[in-house]
Amino acid sequence: MSRFKLFLLSTGLIIFSTAAAQDTARIRQIADDILSTSEMYENLRVLCKKVGPRLSGSSGAQLAISETARMLREAGADTVYLQPCMVPHWVRGSKEKAVLLAANGTRTPLRICALGNSEGTGTKGVKAPVIEVHSMQELADLGNAVKGKIVFFNFAMNPRYVQTFRAYGEAGIARRSGPAEAARYGAAGVLVRSLASNLDDYPHTGATQYNDSFPKIPAAAISTNDAELLSRKLRLRMIHELQFFTYCQMLPDVPSFNVIGEIRGSSVKPAIITVGGHLDSWDLAEGAHDDGAGCMQSIEVIRVLKKLGFHPKNTIRAVLFMNEENGLRGGKAYLAAAKLKNESHLFALESDAGGFTPRAFGFSLQDDKLQKIQPWVKLLEPYGIGGFHTGGGGADIGPLRETGAVLCGLEPDSQRYFDVHHASTDVFESVSKRELALGAICMSALIYLVDQIGL
Amino acid sequence: MSRFKLFLLSTGLIIFSTAAAQDTARIRQIADDILSTSEMYENLRVLCKKVGPRLSGSSGAQLAISETARMLREAGADTVYLQPCMVPHWVRGSKEKAVLLAANGTRTPLRICALGNSEGTGTKGVKAPVIEVHSMQELADLGNAVKGKIVFFNFAMNPRYVQTFRAYGEAGIARRSGPAEAARYGAAGVLVRSLASNLDDYPHTGATQYNDSFPKIPAAAISTNDAELLSRKLRLRMIHELQFFTYCQMLPDVPSFNVIGEIRGSSVKPAIITVGGHLDSWDLAEGAHDDGAGCMQSIEVIRVLKKLGFHPKNTIRAVLFMNEENGLRGGKAYLAAAKLKNESHLFALESDAGGFTPRAFGFSLQDDKLQKIQPWVKLLEPYGIGGFHTGGGGADIGPLRETGAVLCGLEPDSQRYFDVHHASTDVFESVSKRELALGAICMSALIYLVDQIGL
Repeated sequence: MSRFKLFLLSTGLIIFSTAAAQDTARIRQIADDILSTSEMYENLRVLCKKVGPRLSGSSGAQLAISETARMLREAGADTVYLQPCMVPHWVRGSKEKAVLLAANGTRTPLRICALGNSEGTGTKGVKAPVIEVHSMQELADLGNAVKGKIVFFNFAMNPRYVQTFRAYGEAGIARRSGPAEAARYGAAGVLVRSLASNLDDYPHTGATQYNDSFPKIPAAAISTNDAELLSRKLRLRMIHELQFFTYCQMLPDVPSFNVIGEIRGSSVKPAIITVGGHLDSWDLAEGAHDDGAGCMQSIEVIRVLKKLGFHPKNTIRAVLFMNEENGLRGGKAYLAAAKLKNESHLFALESDAGGFTPRAFGFSLQDDKLQKIQPWVKLLEPYGIGGFHTGGGGADIGPLRETGAVLCGLEPDSQRYFDVHHASTDVFESVSKRELALGAICMSALIYLVDQIGL
Repeated sequence: MSRFKLFLLSTGLIIFSTAAAQDTARIRQIADDILSTSEMYENLRVLCKKVGPRLSGSSGAQLAISETARMLREAGADTVYLQPCMVPHWVRGSKEKAVLLAANGTRTPLRICALGNSEGTGTKGVKAPVIEVHSMQELADLGNAVKGKIVFFNFAMNPRYVQTFRAYGEAGIARRSGPAEAARYGAAGVLVRSLASNLDDYPHTGATQYNDSFPKIPAAAISTNDAELLSRKLRLRMIHELQFFTYCQMLPDVPSFNVIGEIRGSSVKPAIITVGGHLDSWDLAEGAHDDGAGCMQSIEVIRVLKKLGFHPKNTIRAVLFMNEENGLRGGKAYLAAAKLKNESHLFALESDAGGFTPRAFGFSLQDDKLQKIQPWVKLLEPYGIGGFHTGGGGADIGPLRETGAVLCGLEPDSQRYFDVHHASTDVFESVSKRELALGAICMSALIYLVDQIGL
């Protein structure tokens, strides 16, 4: 190697290491501020306890909009505004009931809740024999044998998958498509084993999607403990029939909003960096992990960067998306507005996997591009990040893909998430202040790096 | 490079990669079994709910010994036995009381609990003005000014440390040495801010150590919320005096036991691999994370290796140590027995940092030796381990250092640990089944690797 090359190389290394030292110090400032002075956890308490459940179209959702707009203003955002979107308006109605009817006349109550977007049974209820299935193939093989029956999808989340989202994705076909598929063969109703990684008494709701070619049959989730009970009794032929009542219905769409707060970029024509979570939650839950955590972390990114006097090149925009749970209308409206205004979107980061200790970021980048930013992992390691990998994003930011933005998802430790996901146990008390803070630190640091260094 | 060398190298690589593939498959078997069939979580429920608190010398500790010996037999250990040791017998007595007395006569109750090993005030109580200090230096500077007063050590755990054990170590000097130091200057009593990373109403106990040259003055922990309250009122000069009552006392030592289960090694003269946690807990807590988790995981190592038909070269010994919390007599007795029997100890692993998702292992190895086993990290990564580092072990296995054994500590995610540590909130429900399982997987896999490959 020539001396000149060596000189260039060492100069480069010095420049690099100086820059890295600056980044390390800046990220340390971010961390110190969030760990010692942040109001993020108290804001989450307000969202969970004062606002509470906030399904799209509900009064809770409306209150969540005004409360989080206030939080964004208090975080110091240069601009805070509401972005309109029409949302579905599904209501649960009265509390659901289910009962097992044994041949000998005994009645065993079961804990159920209607699936989101499903049609209710009304006061007539559904009363029929139960057929248990463990795969979609099993249902197809049964075919018309399920006609007039209640199909019980007993798909357990696979406990052997360390990545619980993989188990959720696999077993989740029962909730997403089970009712539509059972209706294809003339079933009278559907019960789905709750998509939960633990055994307990709380049913977990979540959206189902009907097929317009078949009847919209009533569908409910059953707690994992009761799914075990039901399966055992079926195996022992102790069940004559099952009866259940749900009172839900889909009302006409209503207007709602995404809540947005920005720090203006200093470039002549700044591109947009989006950081967000979703503001709606299921009606049964405080939505602490899903996704109060992601919303509070996104507001925190704005707060800490403003507090530390950071002047980004790009516009940094916290977006609290409406209607992730049962329609994704907020995410679609955000894309539509971006296209209308001809915005340039550089990067979008979503936190919607719980407020637990951060472990990784997933990027919509090919391997070679991801290699370029791998050195950032070292900067984030002290705060929990173990690696970057390809593949990632989030439901709300998904539509932005067509703008060419790089999409990214925060991946926290996932072991506890599906114990509480979409259930009444997803409450403020299940979130750790420090774990939530570490997620916000990693998100703020990543946004800072993307803004300063680019992708 | 010569062709011959190349040949040797590639052969070596093939042998290595075949061995690594076997290890990967064996560890996958361990994981599958623990994630899908283990009774470890139900055993923890028994230890927390049926046995409950089990401070050394208590009837709970006695019941814990018989219950865990049963669990070890059911896990399939070749031998299960009790190893005697004498333990301190400290009892809390009646529930503690504390009250703030304002100049205007108002009385504000405070939530306190006596520190472990401390002497009680008895029915006389201690009633005196309060002096708040924030460092040992501040106490030394005050010197005799604290004579006859109650010293309030308001040392908060530093929230900026991501490693919460570091914050615990630093602030913990107040609990460990505060009473002895305050007694040096003639203080009448001590209150210590609970060593907790959160703000709540539960006092956290823990051991203190008197200095025999000075009086054993009464000492209690105060909840973090009440520490904040007390500090605020002192700042505003709203306090005239504080009165507190504790009824604890140290009784004479009593006999107790370590509980041990073994898989016999197949070597002619097998060395010992120890894996353990501590069986005693504080009297206020179910001791779910501290250290029911570590005990159940250690039993699980035995169970899964036996179930999978593994024949270790070395003797694998699960040890549930008695009296970690306030004397370490179990750990000392274990060393004494090892020396008496002239045992050869290869490796000792302790899990005593909570039943949370595993993040790392720390080893009592120099860097160069640690480098040799770094390739194992890749094998454990799928189950949560992000790295190996130097420095590590555990209180109970600490004495084994003099045998030349390599010591190792499991390091789980530490963000939630000090919310519940030594408090009545350390209950079964705060442990996640899946997180506990991942820890047991990593421990079993590490024990397997150490046995097969050596250190």
